[in-house]
Amino acid sequence: MENPSPDIINSRIDLLRSTMKQAGVAATVIPQSDPHQSEYIADHWQFRRFLSGFTGSAGTLVVTLDKALLWTDSRYFIQAADQLRDTQISLVKALPDSPTVDSFLTDSLQTGDTVGINGILFSHKYVDALKSTLATKHIRLDMQFDPSDQLWADRPTLPLDPVFLYPESLAGESAASKLEWLRHHLTDHNADSILISALDEIAWLLNIRSRDIKCNPVAISYLYVSRSGSAVLFVDERKITPETADYLKSLGIRVAPYSSIVNFASTSTDPVIMADPATTSALLMSVIGNCVLPHPSPIPLRKAIKNAVEAEGFRTALLRDSIALVRAHRELEERFRQGDPLDEMNVCEIWHRHRSEQPYFFDESFDTIAGYGPNGAIVHYSPSPESASTLGADSLLLIDSGAQYLDGTTDITRTISLGAPTPEQRRHFTLVLKGNISLAMAIFPLGTRGAQLDILAHQPLWREGLTYMHGTGHGVGHFLGVHEGPHQIRMNDIPTPLQAGMTVTDEPGLYLEGQYGIRCENMLLVVPAMSTPMGDFLRFEVLTLFPFDRKLIDPTLLTVEELSWLNDYHACVASALAPHLTESERQWLTEATAPISR
Amino acid sequence: MENPSPDIINSRIDLLRSTMKQAGVAATVIPQSDPHQSEYIADHWQFRRFLSGFTGSAGTLVVTLDKALLWTDSRYFIQAADQLRDTQISLVKALPDSPTVDSFLTDSLQTGDTVGINGILFSHKYVDALKSTLATKHIRLDMQFDPSDQLWADRPTLPLDPVFLYPESLAGESAASKLEWLRHHLTDHNADSILISALDEIAWLLNIRSRDIKCNPVAISYLYVSRSGSAVLFVDERKITPETADYLKSLGIRVAPYSSIVNFASTSTDPVIMADPATTSALLMSVIGNCVLPHPSPIPLRKAIKNAVEAEGFRTALLRDSIALVRAHRELEERFRQGDPLDEMNVCEIWHRHRSEQPYFFDESFDTIAGYGPNGAIVHYSPSPESASTLGADSLLLIDSGAQYLDGTTDITRTISLGAPTPEQRRHFTLVLKGNISLAMAIFPLGTRGAQLDILAHQPLWREGLTYMHGTGHGVGHFLGVHEGPHQIRMNDIPTPLQAGMTVTDEPGLYLEGQYGIRCENMLLVVPAMSTPMGDFLRFEVLTLFPFDRKLIDPTLLTVEELSWLNDYHACVASALAPHLTESERQWLTEATAPISR
Repeated sequence: MENPSPDIINSRIDLLRSTMKQAGVAATVIPQSDPHQSEYIADHWQFRRFLSGFTGSAGTLVVTLDKALLWTDSRYFIQAADQLRDTQISLVKALPDSPTVDSFLTDSLQTGDTVGINGILFSHKYVDALKSTLATKHIRLDMQFDPSDQLWADRPTLPLDPVFLYPESLAGESAASKLEWLRHHLTDHNADSILISALDEIAWLLNIRSRDIKCNPVAISYLYVSRSGSAVLFVDERKITPETADYLKSLGIRVAPYSSIVNFASTSTDPVIMADPATTSALLMSVIGNCVLPHPSPIPLRKAIKNAVEAEGFRTALLRDSIALVRAHRELEERFRQGDPLDEMNVCEIWHRHRSEQPYFFDESFDTIAGYGPNGAIVHYSPSPESASTLGADSLLLIDSGAQYLDGTTDITRTISLGAPTPEQRRHFTLVLKGNISLAMAIFPLGTRGAQLDILAHQPLWREGLTYMHGTGHGVGHFLGVHEGPHQIRMNDIPTPLQAGMTVTDEPGLYLEGQYGIRCENMLLVVPAMSTPMGDFLRFEVLTLFPFDRKLIDPTLLTVEELSWLNDYHACVASALAPHLTESERQWLTEATAPISR
Repeated sequence: MENPSPDIINSRIDLLRSTMKQAGVAATVIPQSDPHQSEYIADHWQFRRFLSGFTGSAGTLVVTLDKALLWTDSRYFIQAADQLRDTQISLVKALPDSPTVDSFLTDSLQTGDTVGINGILFSHKYVDALKSTLATKHIRLDMQFDPSDQLWADRPTLPLDPVFLYPESLAGESAASKLEWLRHHLTDHNADSILISALDEIAWLLNIRSRDIKCNPVAISYLYVSRSGSAVLFVDERKITPETADYLKSLGIRVAPYSSIVNFASTSTDPVIMADPATTSALLMSVIGNCVLPHPSPIPLRKAIKNAVEAEGFRTALLRDSIALVRAHRELEERFRQGDPLDEMNVCEIWHRHRSEQPYFFDESFDTIAGYGPNGAIVHYSPSPESASTLGADSLLLIDSGAQYLDGTTDITRTISLGAPTPEQRRHFTLVLKGNISLAMAIFPLGTRGAQLDILAHQPLWREGLTYMHGTGHGVGHFLGVHEGPHQIRMNDIPTPLQAGMTVTDEPGLYLEGQYGIRCENMLLVVPAMSTPMGDFLRFEVLTLFPFDRKLIDPTLLTVEELSWLNDYHACVASALAPHLTESERQWLTEATAPISR
């Protein structure tokens, strides 16, 4: 998508204001979201991008009759300033002391004014809070203000990729069994039915997938399941192949048009309909009205606890991913050695190519982050042809990437040096690695939460006055979203404890602005460790099988135990991958995993 | 106090039932508490002990017209069973699956019944929850049922020890300054006044102390402070010396009878009175009625952050405490070597005697826990002449003790062997010690909560399938309660972060039922560690200066860093204490702190 000129952006904002005036709306909020509260969204819902010209993945546009503001976070300050230049839209940097969208609206509007939003794009939870804030100044909220079709002539249509079946041989449990479990849950909570908006929940529950959202193999849909046995999938019927139609029928699921969800919900006669306020839109929640039982969906937790087939799928997917990465790293090193001028975009291309040659490859699981030098210090940086740095021997290259394979989703970060690293680079890298190892070695009783474990990854850095501000670990879906809850490992407390079968990443980092970034990320599986008279204990199985850059490791900074863990891990990597590699690849791996001693 | 016979206990319960019938009460709850929600309570409020004969420090008696039940926790299962034998009172072991007092009442009473309690003994917070539970079955709650004076002929009177001034030279801040801060806080929260029930809050705020409760140098009182400048201390006026009277007057504080608090509160004309629902009684809260602003008291947090004078007071108090402990340990070892038959009560006596010879000694800060062998595995065990075990060379002796000195409160646990410990004993001890050291070495950014640090103390045990279930650390008052909040270090999340100036204990343990208990406890002070471009970091200063038993340390289980920390710590202890010891004491200490090598 080419960037529109400032004049075009300005005229779009002016046209938006005309529709606002017609509708009696004093301010509108255009979010980066879809009706399913997805992390990634289809082009059809990129209205904020259309109106503002800002292409970042996070940002909210607020337009009043005399102001236009775009809120975004620190990842996008530079990009947003650049893309908004010469437009009438001002950038608001979302920092702890900045006004929020809610406080801005309350401060700048008058009593009696109306804020207009498209209520299908906001969660019930968010709108509930916004309403309360606005009510303190008697400002009204109109949830039916949606000028997108009117203003956006060439709006992309919703994707029409087929919905395909995800076989039980990969899912490890039939949809019928999952539905039965869900209906038991409804009975336990005295609910007649549940309305599901989250796309990964629907895909997991029904064992179906599609290609509607980049990096996310889901189908844009809603699902209604009643305790009594009926169920309706709201999805564009052109996406339903005969095979899928038969399959859904066999599960007792009727197919209805995607857009009929609002009418269906508003005419339902179920006395109690469960819906998750965090993923159900405010508009949908409002049409269910008094019948709604706002309740967190039970699916995320059950989905997060992988069954044996899913766990085994992750193991084989991560093995193939590592084979691809051996080839990618070798190609990068070789071409760099030969003087081939390489930049960050080449890294993305090489990584993608080797992964896509693997069986079961479906897609990437997120846009590859390849940051050389200062770019590596920008958390969540993704190179573009304009931003891409040329790779060199002096600084560090951070590569965070992942793939969707049919049998599992992957997410790995390695930080490497293409030259002879400085002692300081090695010290920084080894401190991050110590955190990664320390967390990987943890053993903990049932009931332990991520916030309790987090310090294991942070402590080596903290002891040197260093830190990183992002989370330490997130769940990874099984051929689904690369970020999944409800558990996490991070400094703030998330009440869901870690449980056997959960995947979680282990990704401490260090970011030195203007210099380089370091992150060491493996995927872990929570597994039973032991049962003793004092309780049941859990530990981590490391799923990722790829060496850390030996050149960057200063073994004098590792404890005896950490060094022994590292050598064991590298030995494991070598023996797991060796049978699948060519002789020269094996040679590369043998060197990359050679024992390290002090 | 001698134990009453089962017949006497039974007749007391019968008499209680008569008063219940007269008052139309179907059930009553007699708690172990006072009107100030104190951790330790004066004899005057030991009505539960009088009625039941059970002397434990935790337990609730519930009497209905046909049942009498006593709830207590695992520390007291054996003692309670013993003391309730042949009475009509049944023991309810408070375990996760047991009924609670609240659920028992709801299940066993009928709609329309009345539960009678003395509302002055229960926090508003607790009664609020109880009321909701009972309301589900339309059971009424009468907060004015108090048969204690009627049934308890020789009820102890309230203590009459004088209230004395705590000098600013020890407190580090004048009461006038603290009151000014409090009044600012009231202004910030739009409150006209505050009603304070917690005894340590009153003692800290006014820089006064007394001897009303064992181990707790506080005065039984309430305090009212208004924003406009008036203040009233509700206290038995016989406790007020002329000096104290003048002092209070100079602060603008009027003295009123202790019992007049209810009348005062109910006739107050302040529109908004702040009161903490966790420490204010349900009865007092109810008489303030609509004027109350239920709000956590701001005093615990400010009190927990020690000023420089208090911190220095802790350092000197802990130095004297350690000098006393060198003498106590030497005496114990010498007498044991000489074949003197010693039991746990002797330990208590020896410890007390040496401490009481130190300047500024005021009291113990809690009943000494001296547990040899299996007794050491009973958390919170306190020896009595009946329970005391004879000390031997084969097992371990756990001693958890502390004192109130005028310049600081102390709390220390050491575990020692009087013989040649087994490899298993050394392994267990060293795992606990590793946790203690690991926590003591922590460095962490501002904002870190205790639950994040807890794993540092637990991890060495968890990795061996071992654990302990009590908290890892609590705040310690400054010549006040040995347990103080609001911060803690424990597995569950307490939102208050650790802040520079806070004291906190570091006390991992291990308890092997029927064998022995181990606990290593030092007191720590949170101090600034460093400021870097990545933030401000905190660390711990170890306040306690006493060696760990070298015989019990297996240095092969310590990391290089832990061993170096330990040797540094012991060197520190030796050099700090040496100038204050006799030649032979110094000799003992030199051996006890000699460097350990692998």
